[in-house]
Amino acid sequence: MNRESFAAGERLVTPAYVRQGREARRSHEHLIRLLLEKGKCPEDGWDESTLELFLHELAIMDSNNFLGNCGVGEREGRVASALVARRHYRFIHGIGRSGDISAVQPKAAGSSLLNKITNSLVLDIIKLAGVHTVTNCFVVPMATGMSLTLCFLTLRHKRPKAKYIIWPRIDQKSCFKSMITAGFEPVVIENVLEGDELRTDLKAVEAKVQELGPDYILCVHSTTSCFAPRVPDRLEELAVICANYDIPHVVNNAYGVQSSKCMHLIQQGARVGRIDAFVQSLDKNFMVPVGGAIIAGFNDSFIQEISKMYPGRASASPSLDVLITLLSLGSNGYKKLLKERKEMFSYLSNRLKKLSEAYNERLLHTPHNPISLAVTLKTLDEHCDKAVTQLGSMLFTRQVSGARVVPLGSVQTVSGYTFKGFMSHTNNYPCAYLNAASAIGMKTQDVDLFIKRLDKCLKTVRKEQNKESDISGVDNYDKTEDVDIEEMALKLDNVLLDTYQDSS
Amino acid sequence: MNRESFAAGERLVTPAYVRQGREARRSHEHLIRLLLEKGKCPEDGWDESTLELFLHELAIMDSNNFLGNCGVGEREGRVASALVARRHYRFIHGIGRSGDISAVQPKAAGSSLLNKITNSLVLDIIKLAGVHTVTNCFVVPMATGMSLTLCFLTLRHKRPKAKYIIWPRIDQKSCFKSMITAGFEPVVIENVLEGDELRTDLKAVEAKVQELGPDYILCVHSTTSCFAPRVPDRLEELAVICANYDIPHVVNNAYGVQSSKCMHLIQQGARVGRIDAFVQSLDKNFMVPVGGAIIAGFNDSFIQEISKMYPGRASASPSLDVLITLLSLGSNGYKKLLKERKEMFSYLSNRLKKLSEAYNERLLHTPHNPISLAVTLKTLDEHCDKAVTQLGSMLFTRQVSGARVVPLGSVQTVSGYTFKGFMSHTNNYPCAYLNAASAIGMKTQDVDLFIKRLDKCLKTVRKEQNKESDISGVDNYDKTEDVDIEEMALKLDNVLLDTYQDSS
Amino acid sequence: MNRESFAAGERLVTPAYVRQGREARRSHEHLIRLLLEKGKCPEDGWDESTLELFLHELAIMDSNNFLGNCGVGEREGRVASALVARRHYRFIHGIGRSGDISAVQPKAAGSSLLNKITNSLVLDIIKLAGVHTVTNCFVVPMATGMSLTLCFLTLRHKRPKAKYIIWPRIDQKSCFKSMITAGFEPVVIENVLEGDELRTDLKAVEAKVQELGPDYILCVHSTTSCFAPRVPDRLEELAVICANYDIPHVVNNAYGVQSSKCMHLIQQGARVGRIDAFVQSLDKNFMVPVGGAIIAGFNDSFIQEISKMYPGRASASPSLDVLITLLSLGSNGYKKLLKERKEMFSYLSNRLKKLSEAYNERLLHTPHNPISLAVTLKTLDEHCDKAVTQLGSMLFTRQVSGARVVPLGSVQTVSGYTFKGFMSHTNNYPCAYLNAASAIGMKTQDVDLFIKRLDKCLKTVRKEQNKESDISGVDNYDKTEDVDIEEMALKLDNVLLDTYQDSS
Amino acid sequence: MNRESFAAGERLVTPAYVRQGREARRSHEHLIRLLLEKGKCPEDGWDESTLELFLHELAIMDSNNFLGNCGVGEREGRVASALVARRHYRFIHGIGRSGDISAVQPKAAGSSLLNKITNSLVLDIIKLAGVHTVTNCFVVPMATGMSLTLCFLTLRHKRPKAKYIIWPRIDQKSCFKSMITAGFEPVVIENVLEGDELRTDLKAVEAKVQELGPDYILCVHSTTSCFAPRVPDRLEELAVICANYDIPHVVNNAYGVQSSKCMHLIQQGARVGRIDAFVQSLDKNFMVPVGGAIIAGFNDSFIQEISKMYPGRASASPSLDVLITLLSLGSNGYKKLLKERKEMFSYLSNRLKKLSEAYNERLLHTPHNPISLAVTLKTLDEHCDKAVTQLGSMLFTRQVSGARVVPLGSVQTVSGYTFKGFMSHTNNYPCAYLNAASAIGMKTQDVDLFIKRLDKCLKTVRKEQNKESDISGVDNYDKTEDVDIEEMALKLDNVLLDTYQDSS
Repeated sequence: MNRESFAAGERLVTPAYVRQGREARRSHEHLIRLLLEKGKCPEDGWDESTLELFLHELAIMDSNNFLGNCGVGEREGRVASALVARRHYRFIHGIGRSGDISAVQPKAAGSSLLNKITNSLVLDIIKLAGVHTVTNCFVVPMATGMSLTLCFLTLRHKRPKAKYIIWPRIDQKSCFKSMITAGFEPVVIENVLEGDELRTDLKAVEAKVQELGPDYILCVHSTTSCFAPRVPDRLEELAVICANYDIPHVVNNAYGVQSSKCMHLIQQGARVGRIDAFVQSLDKNFMVPVGGAIIAGFNDSFIQEISKMYPGRASASPSLDVLITLLSLGSNGYKKLLKERKEMFSYLSNRLKKLSEAYNERLLHTPHNPISLAVTLKTLDEHCDKAVTQLGSMLFTRQVSGARVVPLGSVQTVSGYTFKGFMSHTNNYPCAYLNAASAIGMKTQDVDLFIKRLDKCLKTVRKEQNKESDISGVDNYDKTEDVDIEEMALKLDNVLLDTYQDSS
Repeated sequence: MNRESFAAGERLVTPAYVRQGREARRSHEHLIRLLLEKGKCPEDGWDESTLELFLHELAIMDSNNFLGNCGVGEREGRVASALVARRHYRFIHGIGRSGDISAVQPKAAGSSLLNKITNSLVLDIIKLAGVHTVTNCFVVPMATGMSLTLCFLTLRHKRPKAKYIIWPRIDQKSCFKSMITAGFEPVVIENVLEGDELRTDLKAVEAKVQELGPDYILCVHSTTSCFAPRVPDRLEELAVICANYDIPHVVNNAYGVQSSKCMHLIQQGARVGRIDAFVQSLDKNFMVPVGGAIIAGFNDSFIQEISKMYPGRASASPSLDVLITLLSLGSNGYKKLLKERKEMFSYLSNRLKKLSEAYNERLLHTPHNPISLAVTLKTLDEHCDKAVTQLGSMLFTRQVSGARVVPLGSVQTVSGYTFKGFMSHTNNYPCAYLNAASAIGMKTQDVDLFIKRLDKCLKTVRKEQNKESDISGVDNYDKTEDVDIEEMALKLDNVLLDTYQDSS
Repeated sequence: MNRESFAAGERLVTPAYVRQGREARRSHEHLIRLLLEKGKCPEDGWDESTLELFLHELAIMDSNNFLGNCGVGEREGRVASALVARRHYRFIHGIGRSGDISAVQPKAAGSSLLNKITNSLVLDIIKLAGVHTVTNCFVVPMATGMSLTLCFLTLRHKRPKAKYIIWPRIDQKSCFKSMITAGFEPVVIENVLEGDELRTDLKAVEAKVQELGPDYILCVHSTTSCFAPRVPDRLEELAVICANYDIPHVVNNAYGVQSSKCMHLIQQGARVGRIDAFVQSLDKNFMVPVGGAIIAGFNDSFIQEISKMYPGRASASPSLDVLITLLSLGSNGYKKLLKERKEMFSYLSNRLKKLSEAYNERLLHTPHNPISLAVTLKTLDEHCDKAVTQLGSMLFTRQVSGARVVPLGSVQTVSGYTFKGFMSHTNNYPCAYLNAASAIGMKTQDVDLFIKRLDKCLKTVRKEQNKESDISGVDNYDKTEDVDIEEMALKLDNVLLDTYQDSS
Repeated sequence: MNRESFAAGERLVTPAYVRQGREARRSHEHLIRLLLEKGKCPEDGWDESTLELFLHELAIMDSNNFLGNCGVGEREGRVASALVARRHYRFIHGIGRSGDISAVQPKAAGSSLLNKITNSLVLDIIKLAGVHTVTNCFVVPMATGMSLTLCFLTLRHKRPKAKYIIWPRIDQKSCFKSMITAGFEPVVIENVLEGDELRTDLKAVEAKVQELGPDYILCVHSTTSCFAPRVPDRLEELAVICANYDIPHVVNNAYGVQSSKCMHLIQQGARVGRIDAFVQSLDKNFMVPVGGAIIAGFNDSFIQEISKMYPGRASASPSLDVLITLLSLGSNGYKKLLKERKEMFSYLSNRLKKLSEAYNERLLHTPHNPISLAVTLKTLDEHCDKAVTQLGSMLFTRQVSGARVVPLGSVQTVSGYTFKGFMSHTNNYPCAYLNAASAIGMKTQDVDLFIKRLDKCLKTVRKEQNKESDISGVDNYDKTEDVDIEEMALKLDNVLLDTYQDSS
């Protein structure tokens, strides 16, 4: 409403009240102005009212929402379904232009602003989360794997001789495929076992660099966030090697923004050595739907080159999701989530430790992994081959999602490359184990239910093996509660065992 | 509501009415069942009630919506913002798995179904639109350019020696960049002028194939939908060449689904020769937000290979949009849109013809282009260099979006390659011109407003040139209506001239 | 967004585009301003974008949406559920104050404006619909019956001796109860049969006035919209009687806004005689959910008295619904609906005529009723008592809603008063019949389906009676279509016959 | 989705996952079934997913949502605006029938169920809140005042001689008007001052009953929730008087559900004497938008009589709001809100006590009022007449809503009856004062901001009076925070003083 509208309002309703309403409107506008001027995540989260006002204001700056617009092109932001228009807040033009995913669209000033602001907020949060010297980043509507591919494709143009990517092994298919898809040959560096942990074999990396010749190496592709007992790569040392041999360094930081340790590794790597880009998932770090990633780095122009490498426009949906989320949370809200995650990690760790000991198993000692934990399944595995898989299936049926059992000796071929001991990041890990992680957004209730159900499953599997024991690692008080799930699960158990696969 | 709930309902409210309500529910369920069983687009569009019931039913099959779920993984579909959850109908897990964008997700049966059904509906619509023998397709949450890149990256693994892509020139940046990004060298085949039309130079293509050697050619990359006076490539002949030399053929069908002519070309090409994949934009053909494309083809296993080439999960948002849209429209609704587009093309064509003649210009004769039209700007160009650009700027300011003026002699360098006569698809087109297109969803009102504003702008530009004439190609009856836009435009005219760029 | 925000936007994104976006925003603002200044229904409906912007702007003027508000009262517009807040666009304070439903709320300038504007729009529409000299009206969140009660309660204070309300019989319970609830004794004036029509017995009315004495009569309570064969009351003549005897006159115009005839009657009545208030339903005239009414009149201060008679605040929900609806439709959209209704009335009338004749029945000749029609069910009734009721039940089961069968001789007692021939507005109508109406929003498809199903039901009932005939009043071409409904209905037929009641 | 749909789903996607999804669906259905079978508020709140599924299931049982419905009546639940349909979850038919607001609608089984369940849930909550022996209640879409009117209108039919309503004074206009509107003469019983409290004058009540004669008295109309220093009426004793003299007793329990004390009074009154109906606001007790009330009682058939007194259908909107709210909260959520309110009352009380003492004022001792508090404004009043009003205006401008200043000697005439000392519930309260209340949903932050702003205002007012002092009752630490509000307020202060009114 403009000045004249308010004046008209004052003729309809007591002017003093209209004036107060108008003043109150200014506090919303003030927040919007601050955001646009500073480009930073507000400390306190916005309420829905301000948020929707802001989105509305942006949307009406796009030509498809002009009241007098007439479109005679082939891409005019027309929408057939009102449901679809509404769920996108009427942002239809996506982001970017044919030449550059970060470019401004003449037809869509609002969407363009949305894109800029989102990238600016996200940059602010990356700094806040620990990578203080990051200089540029952008949200790309592709998941982590494809975003890594884009980085590799960009590097190709700078390193015409390169054929190989040096890759400390991490058993996650899309990491591996990101290199294959880009058309490079991954050079797998096996991890070394230190205590229970699997860590980067720095000597092997350097030896491989020398063997293949730096010019033939596109980059080193390292990883922070991963399943225990693998731990984040030794980023500092890798970054130094990269710097020494003048090799680019791309870091897969998939769900590492939520961990100050992972972020610290990146910050340090960039300080002492070379990191060209680090890529992180939107959904895993910001609790939004799957489908977006952030490509960030320390060299402004290289990040721009990547953004220019994306041919054509792209979906604004992941940007919109993260914008809404960050404005709702505020930086304080996000910090709170980070803090809670850390606490939940300790809690999960303690509960798992206690439970595993009750079953003569143990929590693997993996202090360098800040997110994922692993519990041995030795006794289970000794009795029966299938017991470990059965446990996984049972947990799945009991609506425990994300727990991952890793049996020994699993072999898998991905894009023609055969991995021994697949899922365990190494050819022969000493024992089978179970993974659980404390990721952002986890609640005490998740841990409690998980421990209760795991206890029950372990007991059941044991009984089938021993036909005798009656161990329990959990206190008795709340056993009854979970009856419904159990009932349902019993019906499904047999059906699912056959089709059970890890849900990663 | 299950049987027991209905029984309880009958105890609260007259049983006969509850029973009728329950029976009525079955008609919704019946539609859902038909969809799942047949996998085809329903003839009549669904009402919102059935649509939302269906989406709701799917969503509660995803683990993040299980009431008893406990998540202990790093990717559990948690959402921080209720606004975000709602706008995605609580589908959070995206589509695909690390290995394959078409794969089923254990944690998300509902999202997996959504993905399968969407692909199935879209396949049905492609057949209906004219490519009857298509065998497989999938929606990918990337725009056309990046989707073409994905096709090229997939082909790389099948053709290790290939370095080149044969590409009949089409002046659209993302087409060109899609090849660069994939790491190939585009071999530009200039078009030949036949009458007013720019058409594929088949001899040049074949000569180039022979010159470079088929094994060194990744594929031929042809185009259907394009701006006049370029017309769709001669797909049949290109497909025969590809078949003869055993070279893959990828068709950029960006906004061609809406045209039976473009679809017919693809169908014929596949019948008489070779087409490996054809890629089309979701937004341009289905009136959904920017950000998705369909990769389709005639060889089931090749399309699957492409889908397996996408590393990692992906956004379900474009799939959801097109699913909602197609279910709302029904195949009848979509056919109606296609029919209206065709009619609008004739209407636009007639109005442009009449207007251009009033200004001593003419509508270029481009009968092979079913979507885009071009009007010469000869007289404008003769007087003053800037006049053509000024016209473009004026139209933009007057909220005409999508009209494109093409001056003579524009030179542009894209990824290191210099294009003479950029935007006109040829080095030296005989004259400057203006493009307008009749794309799906266009309304009579769009045409009328466009013609009125174009008339006004032409007159203004002329006046500035001649300081005399008083021509008008439009009838006088509704001149007054557009006053507001004009007023606003006058304020912006000077500001915008400098920054005016084509809005393609 | 204010000036500073736009300036900041221009630093992020090409200023020319931001400026165009800002200009475009003005067209939305312009519509809002016009609405507030003129208080009239816009000719063309607003798009959702403008509408939601407007509602949002109003809502943030309410104290519950102030960012800095602190509430220390007992009614602060707090909302527990975000779903509830959203569905009310965050208008929580309702309308009115303890003293007056039209009063301005200090805490809620936005809601107060919403209330004023809605009443202003509705007044504009009443004029447009035919009552040009109406001077004031307000939306009240109560259905027609309770709104009539409120009028009677207001009159009580002006006419302390009054005990009776003169009421030309109309067999609709809530009309009757509206008088009982207000504490008055309805004096029922039986209608007279003129041809097929039941019309006001003016002589009886005047005789009763003289008999009881004007001072003892609270008012005459007449009706416009009603089921055929009753027709709208002779409002002009009643208004003259009221004027002559100085008796107030309240008109139940329940669904009469949609008919120019009903509105004309009111306009004429007010011109030549006396009408104090006329009451109409929101849902029946404006296609909104049940629950609101409009109380309107020609004497500003009397309408204000009624609005002051409502003790306490009230729901803003019906006002919001009608505001959204009228702004979406525009006056042109509403006029179009009125026009279509009229056409549909002719269509329904013709189809019913033809069908009834095929079954040796006839369409009653009721030219004064512009909305409702009646078809005799003589032949049905002759054979069997239950046949008429059975027909009603069968239609209901076949998802024909709103058709009403009126058997002979139904007797019903309402609040202690016994009506002979209840539902037929008279003690002894010559024959049983079936009602159907052409109300606003009806579609050709409604008529077609109704005629088809009615034909089928009549045939079935006849067959059971005659075990022979094979009549059909409908062309054969589309008989198959309706199979599903029939199948479902057969299952329910027996169940429902017992509980069938008129669904009015 | 039915059995066949799931089977089809299993052919599209791994059957085991579909089966798990289907099982998971059952937990939602289970909650719905429990609700329908028990009719009680679930202990734990439902998530939005279950809630929307439930509403959707109900809505498709209404005839306007039947896919095959054809409507030929005048009220078919047609909706012109999709926005309106959606915000009502497609419940269009409202609740009740012409005869009875609690009646089942043949056309709307879903809405009818919604109505029944809502009334059932609300009854459950009233019991839980302390009135254990309540037997029936219903939600009515009118605010408290009009609902009281409806009770009085119902009683009229049972007590033909009655003219008076005995009413212990409570200075709230709509209470008073509810009697006037119903056509009765309120007999005002002045309160007696006991300590600081204003309490029911039982002797005066009984004397009045004897004076007027029980048959001429419609009922006693008492009040629980009210502004301090008035306290809830002595319900037990009043109930006994009513029982003794055989006079109905209607209790205005406007915002009393949130207080166990108020509810206890009603429970006790009903146990030892007579209470016919008690009426409570929906918005004030359940944090929903203004516009609904609950009429409850101990005699099933009397409550039914009231529900039958409402002529015609009614809005389902308030019922829908309270249903959504209670299902979201669960009884545990509601109990938590009640508990927090109590704690906030203590907190507010302590902070006010401390602040008032700093200014040589005091918190009035009103232990019988569980919700509202009063602080003397003696020193303010002594200096200047306008100071008290000015304080009120200043608080309003500073976005303190709901605080109420009560100056001495205010006289107001309501519906012809003149109240001395209006707002203070008595003719001559010893001093001016300020009210603040701890109502359901209040937050610590509300109290803190209020105290801070009150402190500031008091200081300012004092300064203007004394031009000297520098008192502050609030600690200094967070003074700066509130700067924006202050700035805004200063601009408005002068404007608003004139139009300031109490915002009750």
